[in-house]
Order: sequence, then C-alpha cells, then structure tokens
Amino acid sequence: MSEIDLDTSNQPAPLCLREIRSFFVGGTVRTLQGLPVEQRRLARNGPTRGVDPNGDQISGQMYVQAYLQAHPTRRVPLLLWHGGGMTGANWETTPDGRPGWLTFFLRAGFDVYVSDAVERGRAGWSRWPEIYADAPLHRTLDEGWDMFRIGPRAGYATEQESRQAYADQQFPVTAFNTFAAQWVPRWTDHEAQTLDAYDALLQQVGPCIVLGHSQGGGFALEAVRRRPNAVLGVIVVEPSGAPGAADHQGMAALPAHLYVWGDHIAEHAVWQRYRANVDAHAMALKAAGARADVCDLPSEGLRGNSHFPMMDLNSDAVAARILRWLDTIAPAVAAN
Amino acid sequence: MSEIDLDTSNQPAPLCLREIRSFFVGGTVRTLQGLPVEQRRLARNGPTRGVDPNGDQISGQMYVQAYLQAHPTRRVPLLLWHGGGMTGANWETTPDGRPGWLTFFLRAGFDVYVSDAVERGRAGWSRWPEIYADAPLHRTLDEGWDMFRIGPRAGYATEQESRQAYADQQFPVTAFNTFAAQWVPRWTDHEAQTLDAYDALLQQVGPCIVLGHSQGGGFALEAVRRRPNAVLGVIVVEPSGAPGAADHQGMAALPAHLYVWGDHIAEHAVWQRYRANVDAHAMALKAAGARADVCDLPSEGLRGNSHFPMMDLNSDAVAARILRWLDTIAPAVAAN
Repeated sequence: MSEIDLDTSNQPAPLCLREIRSFFVGGTVRTLQGLPVEQRRLARNGPTRGVDPNGDQISGQMYVQAYLQAHPTRRVPLLLWHGGGMTGANWETTPDGRPGWLTFFLRAGFDVYVSDAVERGRAGWSRWPEIYADAPLHRTLDEGWDMFRIGPRAGYATEQESRQAYADQQFPVTAFNTFAAQWVPRWTDHEAQTLDAYDALLQQVGPCIVLGHSQGGGFALEAVRRRPNAVLGVIVVEPSGAPGAADHQGMAALPAHLYVWGDHIAEHAVWQRYRANVDAHAMALKAAGARADVCDLPSEGLRGNSHFPMMDLNSDAVAARILRWLDTIAPAVAAN
Repeated sequence: MSEIDLDTSNQPAPLCLREIRSFFVGGTVRTLQGLPVEQRRLARNGPTRGVDPNGDQISGQMYVQAYLQAHPTRRVPLLLWHGGGMTGANWETTPDGRPGWLTFFLRAGFDVYVSDAVERGRAGWSRWPEIYADAPLHRTLDEGWDMFRIGPRAGYATEQESRQAYADQQFPVTAFNTFAAQWVPRWTDHEAQTLDAYDALLQQVGPCIVLGHSQGGGFALEAVRRRPNAVLGVIVVEPSGAPGAADHQGMAALPAHLYVWGDHIAEHAVWQRYRANVDAHAMALKAAGARADVCDLPSEGLRGNSHFPMMDLNSDAVAARILRWLDTIAPAVAAN
C-alpha cells in the first residue's frame, strides 16, 4: 500500500492504444406483462417502493471491448471468443497474475476485440421462465476440476492442500479458486441467439481473425461456416463442438483453420467424444480442399496443458505456437 | 467493412499503458448438497450428460480491471464504482459512441480501476434460493426512463419515435435502448458482501480516489467512512444513498467529499427523497469540520443532465468540473 511510483524507467515497452472502446451488438426488445408488482428497498437506508417487472427489456445482446492500437502491425483484428460459463476475463490476466493472451496478441501487433457472449458477464441476462425458457447451470469447482482436465475428478477436494492434479499439469493449480471466481452461470439453449450476435459482430468488425475457446470454438466454426468471406482465419482452442456432417457442403470455400488441443484427453471419456466430433470436422474440411491444421500440443512437445491453455504456466509458449500460424495468415507489416 | 488503415498519422495522441490487468477480490467457497442431478446437452451437437449442481462454488467476489499508465501524472489511482443494475461498461464508451469517463480520466493522467460489483457483470452471481435469498430485479426500460430522469414516466413508449424526454435533456435519447443493453439484473439484499468486496479492493489498491455513481455512490460514502485513511478524496455522482445519522461520529476525520447532482430532481419525488438523505450527509460532514462540496450542475450552468452524467452529451464538461476539484486533491505532476 503505497503511492504510485512515477519513475517508470524500468517498465516494459508500453502498449499504446488509439482507443479503448466498448459496444453492444444484437439484442431485441422483449415486453413483459401481467406480473405482480413487488415492494423492495432499492438504496442503502432508502425507502421501500413498488417495483413493476412489467414492461420492456433488451434481451439477446452481446458485449464487446475493442483495444485499438496506435500503431497496429496487422491488417485485420483478432477476435477472442470465450467458452461456456465464462466471460472475456478469460483472456486478461491469468488466475496467477501473469499477462494473458489479450496482452500477448496486442504486443504481437493486432487490434483485439474481447467479447462477453449473450447471457454472460457484461452482456447481461434475462428472466426465466418469462424470457429464457429454463434456469441456468452454475458450474461447481468439483466439475470444473474434472471437465477442465486439471486432474481426475476424484482428485478434487474443497481443501486446496488435499487436491490431486495431474503430475505434469500446466494449469496454475494453486490459483484454481481464483479462476473459479470468474465463472458465470450458463444456459444450454441459447445457441441461435448467440450465433446471431456473433454474426452481427462479424458484420460490424469487417475482415478479421477469430480465436474461439471451448464452446466459443464451436460457435466460431459455425459462424465462419455461415460467413466464410468475413474471416481470414479461425483458431479453435479445445473446441467442445463443431458443425455436423450435414453442414459440410461448401467447406472448400472456408478460410484456414487451426485446431489446438491440450493434454490428458485420452484419460477423459467426454473429451474423447468431443474431440472425435471436432476431428471429423477438421478431416472433412481437409478432404474438401480447405486448410485445416491440427496442433496437438503434447505431440509438439508441450505437455500437461489443461482445457485452458491461455491460463496455463506455458500460456506464452502456446500463444507463440498460434502466432507462428497467424503469421502465415496475417503477417506483421512495418508499424506506421 | 474494410481492412485496418495502418496510416495512423491523423490519430489523437495515443493512450500508453504499462499494463492492462484484471483481478477478482473477495468471495468465499459455498458448498451445495442434496440437489437433483439434471440431464443436459452442453455443447453444440454434443451428447447430453448428467450435470450435478452439488459441490463448491465461489460467491461474493468482485471483478476489477486496472488500466495502468506508462507515464501516470497523478500519485494515486482513480477507482470508478458503477451503480445498481449496472457494470463497469458504464464508464467506457457512451451509448452514442463517444469516449466515456474511463478515457477522460486516463487522459487526465490517472491510473484507473473499473470494477463490476458483486453479482454484476463479470463478477458472476449465485443460485437462489440456495445461496442468494431472493430472485433479482430486472429493470424495465419504462422504469429506467423515469428513474434515470430521461423524461416523465408517461413519456416512455416502446416505439422510440413516440418517446417524450425532458426538453433540455442531455442524455443521448436516441441511444436509450443501446444503453439499456448494458443493464444487468440486481439484487437488493447484498450490501454487506458488496461492501466487504469494496473494502478488500481499497486494501489491495492502497491510497486512491473513489468516484461512485448512484448506488455505487452510497457504497463509496460508506466504504470511505469505514476506511477513511485509505482514500484521499471521494466523488459521488447522483448517489442514491448515504450512511445514516447514527454513523456520523468521526466525520471530521473523513477525506474531502464532492457530491454531484444532475437536473430535474425537483420534478421527481423519489429523487427528492434520495437527495434530501444525501444532502443531510453532506451537511453533517461539513458541520463536523470535514470538506464536503456540493456541485449542483444546473446551478453551475450545466442544465438538463440525467442520472447518468457520464453518458450525457455534455459528459466531458461534467468530467472537467470534477477534474478541477480533483486537481485540488491529487494535482498532476510532470510525467516521467
């Protein structure tokens, strides 16, 4: 706890931005009627007053933050799409306090757009059952430990010192609770409105590269299938889904794809199924004549990555691997 | 829709940051048990699987983004605390697309911290009735039009062209729906955990200045009362609450306060009551010998401000008024 040190001579090179802006895309007005008025106190030490839930609401919107560089060296921006039950915070500082991929790709010269998908984080969410059909799911730490492949499910314990992670685990295990603080509830039936919002984002941003993680990877594959000319390249990191075989027509026209996978998939039945589904997508793309590169991190010597390589201890090494691929799609040019 | 123009010679001066980071403060592990397992499909075209809601969750945390300058010219950072049913997006781009107060105060030389309070935005939220006691409130556009003093309640209509705002309204009225896209649900009984998280933030950040809006203004007044030595000055913009008279002991030790009010309060019964409560706080502070400055914008010639001066068309003029006050608390020094 001390004042800011105004001597900045030992800092790393600054990130110089021409603008930090945010905006919302998608969303429509939904009108509620016939619900009872409630009496609530809304301000500290304030009076109670009637709150009428009936009326107009905006639903289905997505939140986007744009970090636009003073001197970008890439001709197209990079869009970072988080996974299910997550927000754009995934791309910022890692749970153990290191700079995340937002910073990495800014330093690589890209303008970067970070979004909170429909119903997540700053995008807000709507009442159920009046607007959404169902209640959301709240992921437990127990499930995350297993599904994010930190360690075997039986290795989870409430007490941090009792937890058993995979021996070669790259996730910063002692920061797992800090990571769980950024999880948000998720719904399972909002694919249509989420894809509509991503489509609106692609229209608004113009030519770009999309990097999607987990559920956001599945959304990226589908969004790019629908709007192939909008995107120069798509990177999916640990995608949990992909468009089905019936959607494979026209794949030769798709932009280049990179699929990135972490470790310990062979030890996890659900992830084996998810990956088989996505591998089929990559093979269909390749068979159709499009570029589809699969990066299996362990095969390339990067072992122990979790489902969240952007937070793993070797996050910069994984990002560097992705950047080498990106250099073939959107090479750096001299800064202005 | 075109590629990025790499010729940046006509841009305004860049914002140069040494770091953009985010972190979470507060929050505890809550454990659920005895709830039924649900069968859900969690990935696009993926299989259904059982989802067990029982287990550990993090609850009560707050999300914070820090914009740290390469060359700050103020010795203490500025913390921006949003109001009820809002997120840190309030401080970013205005609904009609102009740079908001985040950019204004960065350009004024401050390191700036933007938070999403407990249960809002990227901070996430918890199940009810298992963890939270009650369902949240979802504010309607109808209510916001009235409570945010855009115009008389009867002036709201779903059809934008039929709406009647106050004649001198400074809010960008045609962007009201865009603004409503950033509203998030809110609970009314989370003051204790929200204040705990703000207290943890003040401890972590060290000496600072707090600028709180609406409900966040009430939280700021209370947080500063509890930790007067942590804060050099507090600005409350349209605060909806204040610590009660029973809490006024020790006020002489409080840092300098600035209270900022917009227009049309006299035409709104709820806001008359809210303001009377806060005016009493300012008077008690002054009577105790502390500095308490009240800035009534219409009295100073800035007319037509809504409840959200940071989004109004004259937002930069209001920010400049606040900056003149800040210059007396944390004057700019030469950049390194």
